[in-house]
Amino acid sequence: MKYVYQFTEGDASMRNLLGGKGANLCQMTKLGLPVPQGFIVSTDACNEYQKDGEISSQIKSQIEKGLKNVEKRTKKKLGSVKNPLILSVRSGARVSMPGMMDSILNLGLNDEIVKEYAVQTQNPKFAYDCYRRFIQMYSNVVYKVDSSLFETAIDELKKELKIQKDQEFTVKNLQTLIKTFKKIFKTETGKTFPQDVFEMLLDCVEGVFKSWNNERAIIYREMNNIPSSWGTAVNVQEMVFGNQNDRSGTGVCFSRNPTNGENKFYGEFLLNAQGEDIVAGVRTPSPIEDLKLFDPKIYDELYGYAQKLEKVYHDMQDMEFTIENGKLFVLQTRNAKRTTLASIVVAYDLVNEGMIDKKTAIKRIEAEKISELLSSKLEIPKNAEVIATGIPASPGGAVGKIALSSEMAKKYADNKEKAILVRLETSAEDISGMMTSDGILTARGGTTSHAAVVARGMGTVCVSGCETLKISGTKIKIGDKTFKEGDFISIDGTTGNIYEGALNKSTNLDNKHLANLLEWADELQQIKVFANADTKKDAILANSFKAEGIGLCRTEHMFFDAKRVVDMQRMILAPNAKVRQSALKKLLSYQKTDFEGIFTAMKEKSVTIRLLDPPLHEFMPKTPKDTEELANALDIDTKVLKNQIAGLAETNPMMGHRGLRLAISYPEIYEMQVEAIIQSAIKVQEKTKTKIMPEIMIPLTVDEKEFLFVKQLVLDKIKEIDPTGKIEYKIGTMIETPRACILASTLAEHCDFFSFGTNDLTQFVYGFSRDDAGKFLPDYYKNNIFMQDVFMHLDTKVVGQMMETAIRGAKRINPKLVVGVCGEHGGDPASIEFCKKIGLDYVSCSVMRLPIAKLSSC
Amino acid sequence: MKYVYQFTEGDASMRNLLGGKGANLCQMTKLGLPVPQGFIVSTDACNEYQKDGEISSQIKSQIEKGLKNVEKRTKKKLGSVKNPLILSVRSGARVSMPGMMDSILNLGLNDEIVKEYAVQTQNPKFAYDCYRRFIQMYSNVVYKVDSSLFETAIDELKKELKIQKDQEFTVKNLQTLIKTFKKIFKTETGKTFPQDVFEMLLDCVEGVFKSWNNERAIIYREMNNIPSSWGTAVNVQEMVFGNQNDRSGTGVCFSRNPTNGENKFYGEFLLNAQGEDIVAGVRTPSPIEDLKLFDPKIYDELYGYAQKLEKVYHDMQDMEFTIENGKLFVLQTRNAKRTTLASIVVAYDLVNEGMIDKKTAIKRIEAEKISELLSSKLEIPKNAEVIATGIPASPGGAVGKIALSSEMAKKYADNKEKAILVRLETSAEDISGMMTSDGILTARGGTTSHAAVVARGMGTVCVSGCETLKISGTKIKIGDKTFKEGDFISIDGTTGNIYEGALNKSTNLDNKHLANLLEWADELQQIKVFANADTKKDAILANSFKAEGIGLCRTEHMFFDAKRVVDMQRMILAPNAKVRQSALKKLLSYQKTDFEGIFTAMKEKSVTIRLLDPPLHEFMPKTPKDTEELANALDIDTKVLKNQIAGLAETNPMMGHRGLRLAISYPEIYEMQVEAIIQSAIKVQEKTKTKIMPEIMIPLTVDEKEFLFVKQLVLDKIKEIDPTGKIEYKIGTMIETPRACILASTLAEHCDFFSFGTNDLTQFVYGFSRDDAGKFLPDYYKNNIFMQDVFMHLDTKVVGQMMETAIRGAKRINPKLVVGVCGEHGGDPASIEFCKKIGLDYVSCSVMRLPIAKLSSC
Repeated sequence: MKYVYQFTEGDASMRNLLGGKGANLCQMTKLGLPVPQGFIVSTDACNEYQKDGEISSQIKSQIEKGLKNVEKRTKKKLGSVKNPLILSVRSGARVSMPGMMDSILNLGLNDEIVKEYAVQTQNPKFAYDCYRRFIQMYSNVVYKVDSSLFETAIDELKKELKIQKDQEFTVKNLQTLIKTFKKIFKTETGKTFPQDVFEMLLDCVEGVFKSWNNERAIIYREMNNIPSSWGTAVNVQEMVFGNQNDRSGTGVCFSRNPTNGENKFYGEFLLNAQGEDIVAGVRTPSPIEDLKLFDPKIYDELYGYAQKLEKVYHDMQDMEFTIENGKLFVLQTRNAKRTTLASIVVAYDLVNEGMIDKKTAIKRIEAEKISELLSSKLEIPKNAEVIATGIPASPGGAVGKIALSSEMAKKYADNKEKAILVRLETSAEDISGMMTSDGILTARGGTTSHAAVVARGMGTVCVSGCETLKISGTKIKIGDKTFKEGDFISIDGTTGNIYEGALNKSTNLDNKHLANLLEWADELQQIKVFANADTKKDAILANSFKAEGIGLCRTEHMFFDAKRVVDMQRMILAPNAKVRQSALKKLLSYQKTDFEGIFTAMKEKSVTIRLLDPPLHEFMPKTPKDTEELANALDIDTKVLKNQIAGLAETNPMMGHRGLRLAISYPEIYEMQVEAIIQSAIKVQEKTKTKIMPEIMIPLTVDEKEFLFVKQLVLDKIKEIDPTGKIEYKIGTMIETPRACILASTLAEHCDFFSFGTNDLTQFVYGFSRDDAGKFLPDYYKNNIFMQDVFMHLDTKVVGQMMETAIRGAKRINPKLVVGVCGEHGGDPASIEFCKKIGLDYVSCSVMRLPIAKLSSC
Repeated sequence: MKYVYQFTEGDASMRNLLGGKGANLCQMTKLGLPVPQGFIVSTDACNEYQKDGEISSQIKSQIEKGLKNVEKRTKKKLGSVKNPLILSVRSGARVSMPGMMDSILNLGLNDEIVKEYAVQTQNPKFAYDCYRRFIQMYSNVVYKVDSSLFETAIDELKKELKIQKDQEFTVKNLQTLIKTFKKIFKTETGKTFPQDVFEMLLDCVEGVFKSWNNERAIIYREMNNIPSSWGTAVNVQEMVFGNQNDRSGTGVCFSRNPTNGENKFYGEFLLNAQGEDIVAGVRTPSPIEDLKLFDPKIYDELYGYAQKLEKVYHDMQDMEFTIENGKLFVLQTRNAKRTTLASIVVAYDLVNEGMIDKKTAIKRIEAEKISELLSSKLEIPKNAEVIATGIPASPGGAVGKIALSSEMAKKYADNKEKAILVRLETSAEDISGMMTSDGILTARGGTTSHAAVVARGMGTVCVSGCETLKISGTKIKIGDKTFKEGDFISIDGTTGNIYEGALNKSTNLDNKHLANLLEWADELQQIKVFANADTKKDAILANSFKAEGIGLCRTEHMFFDAKRVVDMQRMILAPNAKVRQSALKKLLSYQKTDFEGIFTAMKEKSVTIRLLDPPLHEFMPKTPKDTEELANALDIDTKVLKNQIAGLAETNPMMGHRGLRLAISYPEIYEMQVEAIIQSAIKVQEKTKTKIMPEIMIPLTVDEKEFLFVKQLVLDKIKEIDPTGKIEYKIGTMIETPRACILASTLAEHCDFFSFGTNDLTQFVYGFSRDDAGKFLPDYYKNNIFMQDVFMHLDTKVVGQMMETAIRGAKRINPKLVVGVCGEHGGDPASIEFCKKIGLDYVSCSVMRLPIAKLSSC
């Protein structure tokens, strides 16, 4: 079995065997780029090593042969005093794991060789510095000697010599340091520092293999779902030195601009320097254009390579190069990391340049990050103090006056002032204040708390679960700072940070590249994308984003308006049928107005309307003051009202009297809603001469008989309102309880469609309340029990599997059944990917996430 | 195919084909009992009829042949004027469905025959009365003519004649009535009343078949899980008349006493009467002994038959008999309905008489009803007014003074006064009050609300969810009545009824027959029975009921004691590690005391201890007064404390920060508990020289990594406390979230045992909160959507299936895994039956339900 490959023996396609770095070195060698030569010990060898616990003699002998080959090509020899080969030994896995594993540079020097090397390079300071660096790295990687021991020794020597910088060391100083370093090695390992450079090469290879299983690499792999079976390759490569003299240098360049995506060669370099000097930031590098001044030929050569590599890799390249004594070497190339903006521009340009197809372009965009682009940003001064940090719940920056109530938020809005609604938590009653605020800050709740979900749905900035936020009366404390209503704060929904005062904001503008990519996504989509929209305004916006329909219209949001909620309250608290009927009549007319607006906006696209879902107590006033006002409005005794409200209270409202359970107790509510839907559909259909497509969705089903009871109630009402069948409606249910999911094939024959409410389904499957999980999930992340928020990314292992089983069973019984998702996961790229796999017909997401969902749909 | 059977052609084993009544008539015929002869149209014929919508000619001709046969044997003829055969046509399904289907008597009379029959019987009043009854029944069953029309006609005639009773009608009157009846028939059907008696026989058979699908029969079948495919048979039998003259009579007798089970012939009879006269209660029947006075030979004959039938059926018989003109006929026999007490006594006696085996005896007891026997009963006066009705949540009768708080309940108890704790709902903090109360009455919650579950566990009477109960301040309203604290009420936990004032109570005593049956159950058990027990007292009681171990010891109940809860509160609210540690130390000593008591009681039986489960806010004070007291006790500012308590509050505590989630946030709590378990196990083991078997149960698992994290924490602590391994512990988890259930096979390899928490599992699978479901489940029952409470009887369709799949998968991975149930269902006979089927090793139930569970275990 072949374990060792020369750079001449591979290419970019051999990433799994040779690691990303190694495969790219091979590819560049193949393309004739000036790559310092070397060989690669394969990932197979790594796996052998992990199994055996030692490098087998077979692999050792292949390394020896590989080395011989390199020696032949470089005309240098490892261990030779006259003509020494100096090597680097670096890790390189299938995917980049930056900084997770170990590397060793300057292998090939020992006490004897370094003396001659000092003469040869005519730069003894350089030579001894190389050696002392090697001792430090070797000791640390191979023998786990704590690096700080060496750093302390350097610092002590500097103090003794009263110098500031490493560069000020004389050759003598460096020789002293080498002695000290070797002493440290002896003390820590009990051994004399070795001198056999080939043995040390084997040690270094083993050290890199070992580092595959160090703690930080394991955690990184877990977080990024990288199997430990992939292993790492080891790249053994001749060293070139950008710090050898003034004809040397080192730099990084990009084939395009990684910040804005502009198709312009970009980069920076330092003369007489090593790569780490750029990273350390001690000297300021020059822009890549200045390389022309140093040596226009080298600049042209490098530019040419960048172009060449981009054509081969069909993507923007990030290259490292070194100039050694006037000769250019390319040390690494890889697909460049880039901002979201750049990723869009580059992907778009590459399609137009004929380098990639549209699908590839779309796949290159990290859809999730689009929201950054669409939201506004805080401009954070360098010295800005983060006074507290909450959970980043809806991205973007918001600046405004603290408003402790919806009323105050609206008052600010009326005065054209920006407001940040600051609440312990929000509930449906706060909607109006949330709509007029620039941002929302809560003390409780995680990324899927009410505040977070509504905020993301509205595209409003939100920081939730800020534990150090305290409100008592009109006093507000955030972290250690005290505020009062009307004070300015700035919140960053992308990081969760909170700042005192009003920071400046910059707004990301529309992006024509993005618009084009979204059009391509429509051509290529594998799953339809619907919008969650509750109002005419949302519907129009959804249309502008080209949603293919409304997958979730929450009717309860229509009742929370201050004017309307009173009639809802009147209906709920009605002492007799007459009062109830008159309240229902008013609600009917509100709903009709809303539905007419939505139907008119959506035209022949389907509109899925969920009948009333939340428990009725959500409509009740929360404060004594509001209760008293309502008592006056309804002309009843405050005490009586209080008792009525207390009677509606629930211990676990999420599992309480809600969804279709309401219809079983109070059929008149759903009947009113169905009447509103059908009447307004008829009206709009007649007025616009377009076929209106209402889909009536029954929430929270757990049982076949239960569903049929409510379905019959809906059918009876439709028959009454539309006896001649003008409207072609559909009836379906949400699948959001585990029981409904398991009974899916039974329910399928009675439904035109299913919509998975994955928020609630996840809640019930885990027994996690979204509103309370913020209390314990952080501990789960901290202890690496969970890697991600199951309310953001679908739990494919269990919830997803339940869905897949349900869909398979349901479609077998009813092949015409249309199946979608309308939970938060409908706007999450990873979850959408899974939805495609398990045969869902559509996802429905909040309007602001439509671009993300669309990019993920293909 | 044979559809019609003579009584001579069948026996008791042919119940499925001939129906219960028919098969028993055949059996009695076979045994030579004097049974009025007839034939049976089989259930197969019923199914044919339901399919075809008419009686096929094949069946008709078999009926004709069957009739001929009867005519031959009775020497009478249907339709003959001289020697008419008079028949009854009755339904009879495989199982008794009392009153659900239709019957017709006196078929065989028409205008002409009745005249001659009047002469023949020398009793014209009797003959015409028979005919008018026939007209009424035929019209109703065959033509659906409303019976009340006939009743009205009778009433009008009585008014006209100024008489009170039917018996006062003269022959003339009856003839008038017959004319009126026939007029009603004509008006309602448009037809003249038919005269062809054979055609009418076919009509009646069809009428009975039709009644199999009337609404009340369908509902009854659904409620009792009777498939509609069973069908009903039709029994056509010669009429005998107990009301023909003074040498005639009718009665009901039992081979033993159906009230107390005593082995003594029992029954009653009326001379010159029909069966319905006994039912109507117009005349008072005589005890069966008096039959000796009427005719000792007939008495002996009847007694002999009862003995004979009991020997054949191996069970107490309930027989109907008629004496016609001095001759005894037995019309029906069946296994007698009996009280729970009688069922126990009879079953026990039959085993001792060698009639049945022990297993049969146990199967004959309706285990669920045992609780009636063990609980005390209210003696309800005839005129007692039910002022309100709640949900019967824990059986028995309780009488006491209204106590609105635990403190008041305890105060009454201290004064040796009985108390009824009256609360809107109860929570863990009320435990002390619940323990000292005689009964519990709540406004909210169903049969598995906190109040209900705890009450049943303690064997305390409870009525929950009494919606008309209102409490405002110290004023209490129940129904329309107003009370104040200290007023007496009486509550009936068996019916849910509530009475004003103090009713008398009678207490059921220990029952030696039951004790014997329970011993037999132990011999025959197919599934082990463990007890849920949280205290030493419970453990001792569980032992006295011969529980095989403790399946659920809820450690949180140990902290609710008034003295202890302060330290729990101190621990939860600790501002620093020092305070927390000192509070934990106290809690540790409390737990050790408790565990030592329980281990000492249970000896070598296993004790499954669930680590802390409820959210921490359950331990916080609920009222401002208590909060202030706690603030004083902890020496902190009341406002600060209020904020801390508010910070602990949850929106949906059932899905909140509880179970092992607590251990992930606060490992020190579980560590303390494990320390207490192991230390006390060591102590008791050393002291008693018995091997103590603690099983540590981790609640609310949803994930493998999560479980392993907490398991490791437990293991580390055990290793620390018991480094030499003195204690042979087990570690397992509750399976109570849908996710754990689905991941069962993954969890199995890390567990010694599983315990299904079917309460929570049901809650999550349905999305039903036990505490809130009382608001909507009554509407589900009312609308026949649900037939039974899923918290009482396991939902075998989904929850049960999930369990079965989980068990199969888990035992495949870990064949040694022990699997039990510790939810409420562990004490429910139907659920236990299911648990046996799906391979559970044990059920664990509250101590008071141990007898029920034991009887159900075999």
